[in-house]
Amino acid sequence: MTDILHRIGVTTSPEAVYTALTTVDGLASWWTEDTDGDAGLGGVVRFRFGPGGFDMKVLETEPGHRVLWEVIDGPEEWIGTRVRFDLKQEDDYTIVLFRHEDWREPVEFMYHCSTKWATFLMSLKAVLETGSGAPAPRDVRISNWH
Amino acid sequence: MTDILHRIGVTTSPEAVYTALTTVDGLASWWTEDTDGDAGLGGVVRFRFGPGGFDMKVLETEPGHRVLWEVIDGPEEWIGTRVRFDLKQEDDYTIVLFRHEDWREPVEFMYHCSTKWATFLMSLKAVLETGSGAPAPRDVRISNWH
Repeated sequence: MTDILHRIGVTTSPEAVYTALTTVDGLASWWTEDTDGDAGLGGVVRFRFGPGGFDMKVLETEPGHRVLWEVIDGPEEWIGTRVRFDLKQEDDYTIVLFRHEDWREPVEFMYHCSTKWATFLMSLKAVLETGSGAPAPRDVRISNWH
Repeated sequence: MTDILHRIGVTTSPEAVYTALTTVDGLASWWTEDTDGDAGLGGVVRFRFGPGGFDMKVLETEPGHRVLWEVIDGPEEWIGTRVRFDLKQEDDYTIVLFRHEDWREPVEFMYHCSTKWATFLMSLKAVLETGSGAPAPRDVRISNWH
């Protein structure tokens, strides 16, 4: 088992970050505009991109502190993996510790997803700090895999 | 043992990417302007940032294909880890598969370094494609840890 890890700091409150992770409008502002479903505890959120997408079941939510999803549909490599956001305050920042955990193998797609997650987390930071994110289909292109 | 993985695609030749990884001027154009030493096989490259830096021993170089460094000085968590760049051509891109491998524990600093590596690899892509990178001290700020 192997994990993708990231850490960003956002100069907003933990509550603002939490809202961006637990509402459809919030998620659509930084990850993909084509988001729907129920982003609350026990719900299923559907994230769609040009070539496909992911369905996430919301396993845990702790306001201002944590969000945990399980991937229940999407690329074979993602199914059964979990995506975790742990929030804490430090200096003037809300720190987001991100983990996309339990990949079975470090396949090339995992390398790609790690870099894409970084750019999407920077999009989360940007939308909260400036009002302007870069969700798909306006996301940062990193390679031939987009 | 745990690894940081990334994948980018650069619309230049493998030789151009290889040069940016194996010359002091190339490395200074995307990672940190304060780079010196010997970036060739068997050499030691010194990368300096505001608060500190890293010394890398160049363990392997294969023109157009691979660069492998070992961290011989720097933060305690980095010493003994290895940084690997594998290059290949795909479509009109040179694909860089990046691995910073053999971290002993997934400490919070590793989360931070994973996101910073992503932004520096995007700086490598930018300098090769547009002539303008974002090496330290002009690097992208991601958090209170810079």
